[in-house]
Amino acid sequence: VQCFAAEPGNNELSVRLGETITVLNQTVGGGWIKAQNSSGQTGLVPEGYLQVSVSSLHVQPAPSSVKTTTQTENHHTGTQNHHTGTQNHHTGTQNHHTGTQNHHTAAPEDDDGEWDDDWDDQSVSSYRGNSQVNEESGATGRGTHGSFPFSKGPNPEVFLLAKPPANSRDRIPVYVGEVGPVWLYPPSPLDCVIADPKKESKLYGLKSFIEYQITPNTTNRPVNHRYKHFDWLYERLLEKFGSVLPIPLLPDKQVTGRFEEDFIRIRMEGLQAWMSRLCRHPVVSQSEVFQLFLTYRDEKEWKAGKRKAEKDETVGPMIFSLIDPEAAELDATDVERRCEQYSRFTKSMEDGVRELLNVGHTHWKRCTGPLPKEYQRIGRAFRNLSTVFNTSKYPGEETLTDALTAAGQTYEEIAQIISQQPQEDLHFLLETNSEYKGLLGCFPEIIAVHKAAVEKAKEADRLVTAGKINNDDRTCMNHRISCMSYSLQAEMNHFHSNRIYDYNRVMQLYLERQVTFYQQIADKLRAALSQFTTL
Amino acid sequence: VQCFAAEPGNNELSVRLGETITVLNQTVGGGWIKAQNSSGQTGLVPEGYLQVSVSSLHVQPAPSSVKTTTQTENHHTGTQNHHTGTQNHHTGTQNHHTGTQNHHTAAPEDDDGEWDDDWDDQSVSSYRGNSQVNEESGATGRGTHGSFPFSKGPNPEVFLLAKPPANSRDRIPVYVGEVGPVWLYPPSPLDCVIADPKKESKLYGLKSFIEYQITPNTTNRPVNHRYKHFDWLYERLLEKFGSVLPIPLLPDKQVTGRFEEDFIRIRMEGLQAWMSRLCRHPVVSQSEVFQLFLTYRDEKEWKAGKRKAEKDETVGPMIFSLIDPEAAELDATDVERRCEQYSRFTKSMEDGVRELLNVGHTHWKRCTGPLPKEYQRIGRAFRNLSTVFNTSKYPGEETLTDALTAAGQTYEEIAQIISQQPQEDLHFLLETNSEYKGLLGCFPEIIAVHKAAVEKAKEADRLVTAGKINNDDRTCMNHRISCMSYSLQAEMNHFHSNRIYDYNRVMQLYLERQVTFYQQIADKLRAALSQFTTL
Repeated sequence: VQCFAAEPGNNELSVRLGETITVLNQTVGGGWIKAQNSSGQTGLVPEGYLQVSVSSLHVQPAPSSVKTTTQTENHHTGTQNHHTGTQNHHTGTQNHHTGTQNHHTAAPEDDDGEWDDDWDDQSVSSYRGNSQVNEESGATGRGTHGSFPFSKGPNPEVFLLAKPPANSRDRIPVYVGEVGPVWLYPPSPLDCVIADPKKESKLYGLKSFIEYQITPNTTNRPVNHRYKHFDWLYERLLEKFGSVLPIPLLPDKQVTGRFEEDFIRIRMEGLQAWMSRLCRHPVVSQSEVFQLFLTYRDEKEWKAGKRKAEKDETVGPMIFSLIDPEAAELDATDVERRCEQYSRFTKSMEDGVRELLNVGHTHWKRCTGPLPKEYQRIGRAFRNLSTVFNTSKYPGEETLTDALTAAGQTYEEIAQIISQQPQEDLHFLLETNSEYKGLLGCFPEIIAVHKAAVEKAKEADRLVTAGKINNDDRTCMNHRISCMSYSLQAEMNHFHSNRIYDYNRVMQLYLERQVTFYQQIADKLRAALSQFTTL
Repeated sequence: VQCFAAEPGNNELSVRLGETITVLNQTVGGGWIKAQNSSGQTGLVPEGYLQVSVSSLHVQPAPSSVKTTTQTENHHTGTQNHHTGTQNHHTGTQNHHTGTQNHHTAAPEDDDGEWDDDWDDQSVSSYRGNSQVNEESGATGRGTHGSFPFSKGPNPEVFLLAKPPANSRDRIPVYVGEVGPVWLYPPSPLDCVIADPKKESKLYGLKSFIEYQITPNTTNRPVNHRYKHFDWLYERLLEKFGSVLPIPLLPDKQVTGRFEEDFIRIRMEGLQAWMSRLCRHPVVSQSEVFQLFLTYRDEKEWKAGKRKAEKDETVGPMIFSLIDPEAAELDATDVERRCEQYSRFTKSMEDGVRELLNVGHTHWKRCTGPLPKEYQRIGRAFRNLSTVFNTSKYPGEETLTDALTAAGQTYEEIAQIISQQPQEDLHFLLETNSEYKGLLGCFPEIIAVHKAAVEKAKEADRLVTAGKINNDDRTCMNHRISCMSYSLQAEMNHFHSNRIYDYNRVMQLYLERQVTFYQQIADKLRAALSQFTTL
């Protein structure tokens, strides 16, 4: 049973599995959220223990049943259920489903403004929604799986036997580099800067929202987007590329204090990290929808592009039909072995990241709570003693009392430094690891799709014998599984190279600032020491 | 109600006022004692909350009723009860009473060996015991108070009207220096070194004990003493000088592991600090009994000196008869004012010292418990991640994994350093403050004796009128109160100058080692940082 037991005396709140709680403050930091339970008790709960919730005042078509519950770890029911299937994220922090936004809150009054109204042209949909509608159409990518003779698991059959799309200018090349299969990287890397958040309003000021200015390094021309546009992009990317690569989660939608400076800064940081990571991905960054988001010239171009993206049929497993490897087909045994290897790696890394996050959150709390309080008390004790000594009227007392006061102040300053330090270093270490936790959470599904396809191919012989598919179909299937495997390997190599870069960078940042931190304390204490008389 | 509430999850044991508990381990450090309550629960309790206890298997004449109880703060019943009066210490950690040793334990089996047997020549006694016997003798110092017409409070009347001792070569001069009245300091300060603890045994090996070698800088000739000899010296000094100056408490008698190296080292450190402080005191260090202890030539001289010291009649308030101020009598109002001032100062300082000890003990526990555990977890999390990364088989991984492993090891080393640091710096800060807590605990009584004498003098007019004392007596009283006040001021000045020296020294030591500590961590992290690839 997943539940959180509060450490006594530490301002924590115990939560039981399935308990509904109200979020009071999400800006506590260090992975903690201030919440209140139904008995009115308040305290801190680790973010990771909270799961999706939805405002009950939502005007949008609401999903059947969503509430704030403690997390139940990897709930992938995805393989049985087409409708809520592969789009559910394993981290359980966001539930993207026909555009409904689900977040860490049960407080209805907090959710008006950004999400209660228009989705502009009412065109939001998922390819799965469409595939239900188009179930009878058969020939196109969308909905093909409805008529295919396989029954369980993720549905690579959509792709395995579907006709390739007529238009192939969207093909995704895979080269064989030094490290094995790699994506085609653009000559100069795409990046963008998010800045200048502006509060805008509509409906005569009744509805207000924040608009961010995003400037890509390619055009150097800023475009404006609201959070919900980022979320729309996330939806598109997830539906188009979710089977082949991990789409990082958006920073959580904030429920309170949406116009406070701190919140805006934190969200902007999150959006920046999210965009930067996507910009670095050669497949995502080159995609039409991503380019539209970054470079649209006017409202008209944006709306047209949106409509087009929402009608894109090469989504879900069909993405594999675009994979275009430069080399020969891969050996089936090798493919399976690598698949296993990636699965083990991502699982182990997820465990490692989770442990680092856990200890990081614990450390954050200690550094912002009891530890500085103790240093403050030490400082105060020195200063008090100095005050008492001052009353002695003994000659020559001043040198000692001045030095003692300075020492006391030094420890009070150190207390201050300690309490602010996590924001300076631990913050980035935890952010990076949270990002990776999100990415790693996508891999089990990507790998499961791949594995399912391999299993289908193994069934192929039997299906040929039974006359359900023909030999050409089988050859086609093997070719396409090879394509899937190329893409998985290219993505793993992309992941590895980014991982090495990111961890190098964040560890350097962390250690640099830790050095500065300890050096600063040593220097302060050295100055305090110098005030005492040499004996 | 003085009781100790355990902080949950911190291996502490709650104790109620008056509860009897068993000491399991006194060498925990940081002012903590491991103990077990009657329900069998074990945990740490701050030393300060524990009070005297006595082994129930003691063969010696036991005091009426002594048990391990939680402390009841300043229990000076001393003013009413001659028998348990002024010799009870306010700190409550030791009860010196007709040579019975009372300590933090209720475990009888722990107390055999050093204290269960001989007091060599059976001559241990207190001057109060004698004063009861001599109550009728009238003329001598001892016992005079039995016939004096004052009835309450500490008994300065012993001295106020007693004839001065015939022998005046023991006189204690008080000079008027720059800071006011001061003791006569010897031209070169006395000091001694305690070393070479040896395990000795007697009764064919049945009883064993530790003998320490003490070498004074005056003779440079070592003498040997057991702990019980130190305790005998403490008794003599307390009885002789306890009314005029604070006699520091001996380091606690250890109940377990008496022959373990650690315990012996810690006790020797304690005895060294105790002796050094007494050596620095001009009155104590020049006294016959102290000199005997440090310089006796053979067993015969030692035994003869002991017998003489135990028969010393110029003890208790009679010590004031030896005070020999160089200047005129002091103004009564001024005397009273100073007395008040010292009282306020020592009380405030005691509060300050107590607070510093409290936060120091809390800090000690954090630094040896949860904090290093957290750094260890951080280190382990880095190393685990490195191990996972190593399985990626991605080229160029080694630089990162090597650096990550090094970073992990660094944090594990830091954990180790943190947990050992209190022993390196906080230890001395706490030791010095504990010493001062002990000294400060003696002042209320010293000041009370002084105050009581002042009150008696105020009564004098009435007593002269009533014909109970004559005018000469009154003049004599005023003169002697002036002597008492000179001695109090000399002692306060001695205290102040030592305090300034001690706090300067210990704060420097503490800050020096704190600088080294933080610098060491900064340097280690800098080395770990250098292993990461510059990006």
